Amino acid sequence: MEIKVLKDILSANEQIAERNRQLFDSNKVFTVNLMSSPGAGKTSLILETIRRLKEKTRVGVIEGDISSSLDAEAIGKEGVPVIQINTGGACHLGANMLSSALSNMPLQDIELLLIENVGNLVCPAEFSLGEHKKVLISSIPEGDDKPFKYPLMFDIVDAVLINKIDLLPYLKFDTQAFSQAVRGINEKVEIFQISCATGQGIQEWVSWLLTQMSRR
Amino acid sequence: MEIKVLKDILSANEQIAERNRQLFDSNKVFTVNLMSSPGAGKTSLILETIRRLKEKTRVGVIEGDISSSLDAEAIGKEGVPVIQINTGGACHLGANMLSSALSNMPLQDIELLLIENVGNLVCPAEFSLGEHKKVLISSIPEGDDKPFKYPLMFDIVDAVLINKIDLLPYLKFDTQAFSQAVRGINEKVEIFQISCATGQGIQEWVSWLLTQMSRR
Repeated sequence: MEIKVLKDILSANEQIAERNRQLFDSNKVFTVNLMSSPGAGKTSLILETIRRLKEKTRVGVIEGDISSSLDAEAIGKEGVPVIQINTGGACHLGANMLSSALSNMPLQDIELLLIENVGNLVCPAEFSLGEHKKVLISSIPEGDDKPFKYPLMFDIVDAVLINKIDLLPYLKFDTQAFSQAVRGINEKVEIFQISCATGQGIQEWVSWLLTQMSRR
Repeated sequence: MEIKVLKDILSANEQIAERNRQLFDSNKVFTVNLMSSPGAGKTSLILETIRRLKEKTRVGVIEGDISSSLDAEAIGKEGVPVIQINTGGACHLGANMLSSALSNMPLQDIELLLIENVGNLVCPAEFSLGEHKKVLISSIPEGDDKPFKYPLMFDIVDAVLINKIDLLPYLKFDTQAFSQAVRGINEKVEIFQISCATGQGIQEWVSWLLTQMSRR
């Protein structure tokens, strides 16, 4: 009974996600769903990405949070269109929430849409939004055991960014063991080591993103 | 319709939580539900707490994770009874999962039960387990804006531990602004600054815990 209800919800979500994808494609908008634990660096990565891409491509941002509009305010200062979705308690964005928000996003004016999901390694992994790529930000302070604890999240993403790499001298984190564990779950995944604080690795991430966009 | 289903689930959970609480009380077991983001330091705090309390009180541990038994293995080395619950996808422990696990925990032999919830700032806040105290571990690398983004979690807890305080020199985190934001949501909450890496503040936390136990 419970499983049936869950299946219905998931399938309704998939249908709306598919409609979102068609809307993105007809507007030639490439869309990335950014997921992570709370405070792993989603907003910082979006800011760094906008700054490096501003001259090359037109970016829009959708911010998902349970409450507050702190992140949308920070991103609005970069002069790009941004919409905040408050989920009002829900632990992930759903395709329906995104669909509602899209009516306020000038899709014809942008080429890249970055979507920041709710900070959570569980529920966001289960709900597609209609995005072209799913990206996970892991961060050094979270520890290198996370692939074993949240395998679905690591399985469904196209890229994993290891953020806060500048903190490596102060913490125990085996990047090789972590990458091995990630590839054990998802052998095709791209892995980048980055620091939004120092800028390390951001250019490689941005180049990968532009390559993915050009392939569509 | 959806709201009705959710209410039914929550109310069923409350009933089982109440039965768990009666079981704890009849066995004179004090129970703490530890919650946090992934990698904020729940397992490290449990290890530090066991080490300081081993001579004073008999501790048992229940570990909640979506998958893996890494944490239970680490804690088992301390020679205390430990049970791993794998939620198999669920983003929080439920009172029913705890109830099943309790049949394998020698309640008559312990005085303090530490329960590590799934790493998530959203769903665990909504489900009581029958615990006597709810404790949140926040950590410096997550940033000081979390109370605004996850207000329910900060509202329902009895204590907030600010962990990884040893990383303050390397990160932007305003402990005063954070504490103010937490107290704005929950004025009675206890706030501790700790580091499981250096031991800072752990004794204050353990003393508070012993005081709470003695008051029951």
